[in-house]
Amino acid sequence: MTSPDPRELRAQGLDAQDPLAAFRERFVIDDPELIYLDGNSLGRLPRASRALADKLIEEQWGARLIRGWEEGWMFSPERIGAKIAALIGAQPDEVILADATSINLFKLVVAALRYQPGRSTLLTDNLNFPSDLYVLESAIKLLDAGHQLKVLPSPDGIHGPVDEIQAQLDERVALLTLSHTTFKSSYTYDLAALTAAAHAAGALVLWDLSHSAGAVPIELNAADVDLAVGCTYKYLCGGPGAPAFLYVRRDLQERLESPLQGWMGRADMFAFDLQYAAHAGIRRFLTGTPAVLSLAMIEPGVDLLLEAGIDALRAKSIAQTEFLIEAWEGSLRDLGFALHSPREPAWRGSHISLGHPKALGIDQALIHAMKVIPDFRAPDNIRLGIAPLYTRFSDLHETLSRLEKIIRDDLHAEYRQTTPTVT
Amino acid sequence: MTSPDPRELRAQGLDAQDPLAAFRERFVIDDPELIYLDGNSLGRLPRASRALADKLIEEQWGARLIRGWEEGWMFSPERIGAKIAALIGAQPDEVILADATSINLFKLVVAALRYQPGRSTLLTDNLNFPSDLYVLESAIKLLDAGHQLKVLPSPDGIHGPVDEIQAQLDERVALLTLSHTTFKSSYTYDLAALTAAAHAAGALVLWDLSHSAGAVPIELNAADVDLAVGCTYKYLCGGPGAPAFLYVRRDLQERLESPLQGWMGRADMFAFDLQYAAHAGIRRFLTGTPAVLSLAMIEPGVDLLLEAGIDALRAKSIAQTEFLIEAWEGSLRDLGFALHSPREPAWRGSHISLGHPKALGIDQALIHAMKVIPDFRAPDNIRLGIAPLYTRFSDLHETLSRLEKIIRDDLHAEYRQTTPTVT
Repeated sequence: MTSPDPRELRAQGLDAQDPLAAFRERFVIDDPELIYLDGNSLGRLPRASRALADKLIEEQWGARLIRGWEEGWMFSPERIGAKIAALIGAQPDEVILADATSINLFKLVVAALRYQPGRSTLLTDNLNFPSDLYVLESAIKLLDAGHQLKVLPSPDGIHGPVDEIQAQLDERVALLTLSHTTFKSSYTYDLAALTAAAHAAGALVLWDLSHSAGAVPIELNAADVDLAVGCTYKYLCGGPGAPAFLYVRRDLQERLESPLQGWMGRADMFAFDLQYAAHAGIRRFLTGTPAVLSLAMIEPGVDLLLEAGIDALRAKSIAQTEFLIEAWEGSLRDLGFALHSPREPAWRGSHISLGHPKALGIDQALIHAMKVIPDFRAPDNIRLGIAPLYTRFSDLHETLSRLEKIIRDDLHAEYRQTTPTVT
Repeated sequence: MTSPDPRELRAQGLDAQDPLAAFRERFVIDDPELIYLDGNSLGRLPRASRALADKLIEEQWGARLIRGWEEGWMFSPERIGAKIAALIGAQPDEVILADATSINLFKLVVAALRYQPGRSTLLTDNLNFPSDLYVLESAIKLLDAGHQLKVLPSPDGIHGPVDEIQAQLDERVALLTLSHTTFKSSYTYDLAALTAAAHAAGALVLWDLSHSAGAVPIELNAADVDLAVGCTYKYLCGGPGAPAFLYVRRDLQERLESPLQGWMGRADMFAFDLQYAAHAGIRRFLTGTPAVLSLAMIEPGVDLLLEAGIDALRAKSIAQTEFLIEAWEGSLRDLGFALHSPREPAWRGSHISLGHPKALGIDQALIHAMKVIPDFRAPDNIRLGIAPLYTRFSDLHETLSRLEKIIRDDLHAEYRQTTPTVT
């Protein structure tokens, strides 16, 4: 008889005390053997979403047909947006669902640059989503007004270049835009402090909340944030590619102009006037007809997060990333893993990245031989994502044991040539 | 015993001979009493889509989780796009699903204007979707390069201003963009003739196919069309707000640049390079992550249209709009209705519009007292839409009888103050 593994016992104890443990049953868990640590890329399917899908398809599209528009579809973007607002510290009329994150970012960046005609610098960092940088490039190219994009480098590839950002904030900066939690290292900015610093220099601030919404407490109003965007398919569990959200502080809404004028953002859209006139408030940032099925499916995941409460989610998330990092300090470091996330809980979001010279093979061995789904970010980051609504401490213990086994038994060797999992 | 109504007998005979009659059973028809003549706004739910939804949600999102991306989601935009290509006379690699129609239009209009730097005129008409005009205004404002939008007026509010368009096509025109079938009157342009005329003047052409795809034969390649966009929730039965499609002729794809650079359109997107580089071919016109559930649901409707064949669909559509117009000539005209669609079948799409001084009240009486769903377009158009996959001649006869009854019994009076149905 082997003596019990102390880490396993600790995980069991933490699961037994977990005040959020019951939320796991609110999700469809098809295969109880599978350990899913990629809720930061695609959140699991809430049971309520499965039921909602039947209603949307059979009762609404199938039976109510076009009448579905007046029975709820038309105002779903602001109704569900208001729930997301509650999750990120905004007023109900400051958040709306629309399009994809990149497109919302484009709308708000162009609007912000036009609003600050005397300023020519866009400030960001190289930890931001590359997709966000592509959008910033697009906006600059299209405006063709001499804007300059400054992509400040992280000092170590893990932490944000906070000092450099502060130093660059001057009267030339039109917009500071950053990922609140960065997608590779999980580094999480002090949103309030940097917003205040940008405002002190007269710049606007736009936060991409894709990797923090639903995982990290966010107080947009308290920090006086100007603009934000975020995606709904990660911690919000909205389903693959579900429409994104955008936030515009109330007093800015009617001072900004969307560069993508569409009929959903028009005042009195059914008048079918040939001239555009923007709708009052946040709705002016809508463009075309929303993908109703994908959009409506966002609601159940948001409801679960609101029910759990962001403080409880954050407390569990920190406990779980700490659990992983302590195990890294205890064993994984000696097996060649590097910690590619901040050691200090306040500076990270809800995932950790582990580097390793054989990272891609290890990632593939986890997936194909070990029934663990992490994800991989080039060149050598294995991301382990915590979704506190359904991740258990025992899942983390199991993952760690399997990682240790992969290295000890050299199980990653046969996967070296595999292309990374698309995530 | 009353003698049988000859129009009813004729409708029954036509339904009995209808080679497409069996397709109606391929749709979910919740209420057999309800007559649905709004398939040109939101197509009915195919039975196969209901089954697909279970698979997408339960098996793919629920069980395969993030692995769904590599098992099909990533390439759904071009795979389903290729099927739509077959419906509109294009090569499989010339059509892709993305975003909303307005956003696709923005991408292609901006790309076309930048490609024609020496030309400053955008030509369209006042029968085009107002939403398309809003996008044209957006593009001009954003480029800020002195472009001029000419909105040529229809001579009678029904027919396209063909002579005027021909007269205006000169070396100043960068782009001619029109709805192939116009949304109010159903007027349908000669796509090949106007494309040739625009090309003769050195202009590019962009057709909005939202009201013709799946209803009217379209040969984009044969006509050498440059660019097109279209929606999928009307005749294609893709579901409410389902993502739109865009077409770029193959030889133009790598000469045009999307103004909305996004990670889905990048070459080697998982390299996460900070610099954008466009993907080869049509994929460069993608931007952000697509709404997978809404997008995948487009396929069954397209399959049904391909199985039925566009020529058979068009033949039935013409027979059905003729049936309506003959009844207008026989009785509705005398009851105060005006025909707001072309009398000649070649010049109309798959709906007809009837005007009436009491049109709004009549529309509402049809919906609320008569179990018929048409739609209404300001100021006075009752649109009766034919979806040949599921509309029966007997539905049309019934609708006509109910319209006659509404006028004779003055049933519209109590609905005069109602706001129009949102569609």
